[in-house]
Amino acid sequence: MRIMILGGDGYLGWPTAMYFSNRGHEVAVVDNFTRRTMHVERGTDSLTPIRPLSERVEVWRQVTGREIAVYRFDITDYRHLHRAFEEFQPETIVHYGEVPSAPYSMIDRDHAVFVQHNNVIGTLNVLWALRDVAPNAHLVKLGTMGEYGTPNIDIEEGYIEIEHKGRKDTLLFPKQPGSFYHLTKVHDSNNIHFACRIWGLRATDLNQGVVYGLHTDETELDERLVTRYDYDELFGTALNRFIVQAVIGHPLTVYGKGGQTRGYLNIRDTLQCVELATLHPAQPGEMRVFNQFTETFSVLQLAETVKEAAEHLGYGVELHHFENPRVESEEHYYNPTHTKLFELGLKPRYLSEELVESMIHGVERYKDRVIPDAIKPRVKWR
Amino acid sequence: MRIMILGGDGYLGWPTAMYFSNRGHEVAVVDNFTRRTMHVERGTDSLTPIRPLSERVEVWRQVTGREIAVYRFDITDYRHLHRAFEEFQPETIVHYGEVPSAPYSMIDRDHAVFVQHNNVIGTLNVLWALRDVAPNAHLVKLGTMGEYGTPNIDIEEGYIEIEHKGRKDTLLFPKQPGSFYHLTKVHDSNNIHFACRIWGLRATDLNQGVVYGLHTDETELDERLVTRYDYDELFGTALNRFIVQAVIGHPLTVYGKGGQTRGYLNIRDTLQCVELATLHPAQPGEMRVFNQFTETFSVLQLAETVKEAAEHLGYGVELHHFENPRVESEEHYYNPTHTKLFELGLKPRYLSEELVESMIHGVERYKDRVIPDAIKPRVKWR
Repeated sequence: MRIMILGGDGYLGWPTAMYFSNRGHEVAVVDNFTRRTMHVERGTDSLTPIRPLSERVEVWRQVTGREIAVYRFDITDYRHLHRAFEEFQPETIVHYGEVPSAPYSMIDRDHAVFVQHNNVIGTLNVLWALRDVAPNAHLVKLGTMGEYGTPNIDIEEGYIEIEHKGRKDTLLFPKQPGSFYHLTKVHDSNNIHFACRIWGLRATDLNQGVVYGLHTDETELDERLVTRYDYDELFGTALNRFIVQAVIGHPLTVYGKGGQTRGYLNIRDTLQCVELATLHPAQPGEMRVFNQFTETFSVLQLAETVKEAAEHLGYGVELHHFENPRVESEEHYYNPTHTKLFELGLKPRYLSEELVESMIHGVERYKDRVIPDAIKPRVKWR
Repeated sequence: MRIMILGGDGYLGWPTAMYFSNRGHEVAVVDNFTRRTMHVERGTDSLTPIRPLSERVEVWRQVTGREIAVYRFDITDYRHLHRAFEEFQPETIVHYGEVPSAPYSMIDRDHAVFVQHNNVIGTLNVLWALRDVAPNAHLVKLGTMGEYGTPNIDIEEGYIEIEHKGRKDTLLFPKQPGSFYHLTKVHDSNNIHFACRIWGLRATDLNQGVVYGLHTDETELDERLVTRYDYDELFGTALNRFIVQAVIGHPLTVYGKGGQTRGYLNIRDTLQCVELATLHPAQPGEMRVFNQFTETFSVLQLAETVKEAAEHLGYGVELHHFENPRVESEEHYYNPTHTKLFELGLKPRYLSEELVESMIHGVERYKDRVIPDAIKPRVKWR
């Protein structure tokens, strides 16, 4: 299958490209290196020493004999996107090509506007390019579980049947996103839903939980194929960040009480989920929604899991309850449904102490690269 | 009260400015003349010979002795918006400053992207300017009933209590907007809801029905104060357009079966509703939603009403069922709640044959200005 990965230089995009390439698919990656640029802006960096994209694909060719095509452009530029679709004729588009950081979107007006413009217009362009060039292609779009917020009812997969005053309808699940970034994913979902309804496009919206992990089978083939690993305030996420903190002796930064519960999954399961969605595409006119995570944890549970594993390896670890920079409930009901990917065959790799230990060992290798100043939360929601 | 009207040169913005000014409020209007420019682009024009904004405010001063301040800038330009907020110190912002056309947003990619960028970023700027300069001011934001689409359940005012698997929550009403334009209003609502939650802003989202009418008490004071009146394919709306068609002998353009039912209101009631929202502001942290219309009609009912009234005045009128350029249900359930503005004291002016007759007389005065070529639907949704 011809698969185009938007955001193919990123944490998930690059491993996804290698994963599909390794399985015999024809893969192209598109990136404009926004994430790398943002790290330059903020004075932060990936823990892992990632190689330039051109070198990555060259190493991949040397190691596997397989080619990955590279397109360098910004998907908010329609002319380039249209031309790339015409040239590559994608059958599946895996769309990671958005700015994925809640705190980055909350820095100030300029950052909020940049993130909303970048994500919403980029995805709008993808929809028009699908309509104009590849109307039968399947869009696999990365959303986030953060679109839903934490309602007091069970979260369903994208849609909910509502019975109201004696009548019924099945409608999009009402959402309560928690940052200008999360809002872009809601805007995208609404735009995609519309495009499927009027143009008959086919899309799968993957509302993904928080991803953790450093390696996939493909990144382990050669150290130069390693993917990025962010641990800083803006792009790091709970578990990955805690592990870096444990290794460098920084207190684990629990925000507030730590009762914030979210869905999580291993990076290897992300690849499996994206593959399952790709091999079982949505129908024409359908925007299908999967909640993509394997288990839920509170922030405090994760911190304690990391503390325990790190202590078994001889580290001294402290938890520090930081004043919560975000506006969010620190104790809430959370019971999201997530059965559809399991029905398609997902075999999850659950979080375990061994896994945390192996992540700790992976991180130890790069601990000299850590910029400790990048960890403390500075961006406030209010 | 100091009231700033964004989009103060428009069909509703200009009459709103005069209405508040006439009642002793201090009024500023902001506009960058996007609507006038779009008409230049499309080769269309207002039925009424509207004057330049500078002349309008000068006539207003001569007729009433009252001043309306004018700001000329694009609200997507934050620097100007911020400065205007600092200078004028608004207590209420009435926000009409968006591109309001569904077909315009469906012309092609460039128009879809322009409308989404213009509306979403403009409103995002307004939220940041409120936060930074006027956190206690009340945002009265014009949304549209078109955000809801036509679900098979009763439409509530912004929120719905959902009982699901034995638990309950009150969440934003799930929406199914019917164009890239309507989608912008949904994106706005989500962004505003978030800003109220995290920053404690106060907002009223007026989900307005289709407005009809030519005159208000203030536009009738002097012909040079007349507001714009659009009847073309892109900016004309059902009733206003039918009346022009009847007067010039063009068949009334019913799209498809004409069973599309929507909420409608008189332009004079728009002013009343906006005043009620302004005088009874939302609480800090609250995004209040009112469904702003007084009665519902199907397109066919409206066409028949116009036909009957016009025939009583001696016109020969035909209905023509055009192939529907839109993707929408032509027969559907529609029962939206709209009690909150009535509870605040709204005294509606319902549609009547006399009113249609008086609109016909109003339009007759300008019939030589009609560009018949602008009427036929050309923009298609698919």
